[in-house]
Amino acid sequence: MIEPMNDLPIGIFDSGLGGLTVMRAVADLLPDEDIVYFGDTARCPYGPRPLPEVQRYVVEVASWLARHDVKLMVVACNTGTAAALPLVQQLFDVPAIGVVEPGARAAVMATVNRKVGVIGTIGTVESGAYSRAVRALDAGVTVFSVATPKFVDVAEQGLRMGPGALEEWLAEFSDVFVRPSFYGMARDYLDPLRRVGVDTLVLGCTHFPLLSASIGQAIGPSVRLISSADETAREVAEMLTARGDLRDSARPRVLTFATTGDAAEFATLGARVLRSPIDRAQHVTVDELSRTSRAYDPAAAAATLTVCD
Amino acid sequence: MIEPMNDLPIGIFDSGLGGLTVMRAVADLLPDEDIVYFGDTARCPYGPRPLPEVQRYVVEVASWLARHDVKLMVVACNTGTAAALPLVQQLFDVPAIGVVEPGARAAVMATVNRKVGVIGTIGTVESGAYSRAVRALDAGVTVFSVATPKFVDVAEQGLRMGPGALEEWLAEFSDVFVRPSFYGMARDYLDPLRRVGVDTLVLGCTHFPLLSASIGQAIGPSVRLISSADETAREVAEMLTARGDLRDSARPRVLTFATTGDAAEFATLGARVLRSPIDRAQHVTVDELSRTSRAYDPAAAAATLTVCD
Repeated sequence: MIEPMNDLPIGIFDSGLGGLTVMRAVADLLPDEDIVYFGDTARCPYGPRPLPEVQRYVVEVASWLARHDVKLMVVACNTGTAAALPLVQQLFDVPAIGVVEPGARAAVMATVNRKVGVIGTIGTVESGAYSRAVRALDAGVTVFSVATPKFVDVAEQGLRMGPGALEEWLAEFSDVFVRPSFYGMARDYLDPLRRVGVDTLVLGCTHFPLLSASIGQAIGPSVRLISSADETAREVAEMLTARGDLRDSARPRVLTFATTGDAAEFATLGARVLRSPIDRAQHVTVDELSRTSRAYDPAAAAATLTVCD
Repeated sequence: MIEPMNDLPIGIFDSGLGGLTVMRAVADLLPDEDIVYFGDTARCPYGPRPLPEVQRYVVEVASWLARHDVKLMVVACNTGTAAALPLVQQLFDVPAIGVVEPGARAAVMATVNRKVGVIGTIGTVESGAYSRAVRALDAGVTVFSVATPKFVDVAEQGLRMGPGALEEWLAEFSDVFVRPSFYGMARDYLDPLRRVGVDTLVLGCTHFPLLSASIGQAIGPSVRLISSADETAREVAEMLTARGDLRDSARPRVLTFATTGDAAEFATLGARVLRSPIDRAQHVTVDELSRTSRAYDPAAAAATLTVCD
């Protein structure tokens, strides 16, 4: 049976659990849409990996989603977006939305003094993707980027500690003087951004919304924090609306989850990020992903990233 | 007296009257905002002029608006946006929005087969601005651009014929067999776009919405027409909302007009595009514009246009 296009699910994927912050925003904004989420947890994090490796992983997961007949893909991972969004857009017939452009756009809209800070993984910051996206929208905005890889570790560790424990744990963390406290680490990362006077800070990693209260305290109340999740969700809604592709069915929506990691752990930890229960997640082996991936030319893929700066 | 930022007017400018289609959309969406409109009618059209000349004109008009304390500028001219938006964004403290990115964005949202047509002036098409803007959002979309300079002439001529007369005139025009009929001309321009199968057509010139019915008939009913006016207005609203800069005053809004051309003619013809009366327009000489312009380095200005293709 061929379903009408608008009743197909939205596909959302990330290297792990962080993209569930985006899924939550999409699910809230579009409560009737089916969503398939894929977390490549076994190979998380993508941040420190070489570019061609990230590109290959992203194409593998996108291929899996394409076989599951999604009507739209969201690359809910900043590193993956920066490395491979143009590649995914060229390889697949369904449209793909990343998290960098919506975050950049929100920052341009919000900044008054036109100094924008970006924090993210090493891969995201080195790609220059945010600088390019911001300056394409407003050439008068200056972007200051800082790689904050330890924030990813902190968010992951915090997640494993159970619901509500992350903020408590961060507070305790600051008492452990053997290693730098979270706030000390955060200040080290964020002080350069505060000194240059950014008035807007993009949380350029889907893990960082989990730390937003602490990051906000560390950088101070005058800086506006931008999470890509809400902006990306709005872009998904805008695109489906413009194309007449919103779902129109009496059946309650279905949320589906798949992971390359441990399915039970994904369901437990994922529910904390999604803030709603995950009954089960399907396990997909990395082997199966690789075997069923769309083929592409890595040299041509690298060429999609021509930098304009 | 220093007014609070949010009660300052929005500045909108164009080479002539076409930008009033954008002003109309902004005025409809934001009925409480003061707006200052500047039409550089004496030097219209910008389309066929060399790039450095267009850049100089745009900076001159933007300088005039900046002296009139606008809180946001809209370059409501595709040629001007393509040539000088980054320059304006770098030279002035207030944010500037162009019409290319909003139109490109709407096209990306709307296209299903990911083949997008763009029609515009020679300057706009040669700049490649739409191709770049579309592909920055979706690298899988192919953009087909055609320069249609005669459409600008037709729209200008039609405007001079009085309210409601344009479409009638176009119908008559097609009976004059000495020169090609409008529909013949439109078919010549648009046939290549129809043959490659674009499903979306960007009206990449603020004059073209005046011809949209005829352009729509010529290209056929299966192609969706995108006018930048509504999209640009939404972007203006989004930015003012994000920055808390919407006007908040009990005083009724004030719409103000200035032109380098004949003020009485501007008021008469402009009212037809704006679809509401224009009581008066202020005349500003080209000399005064040039004399009071912000200085800038033309070589650096050219460098703002580094093309990535």
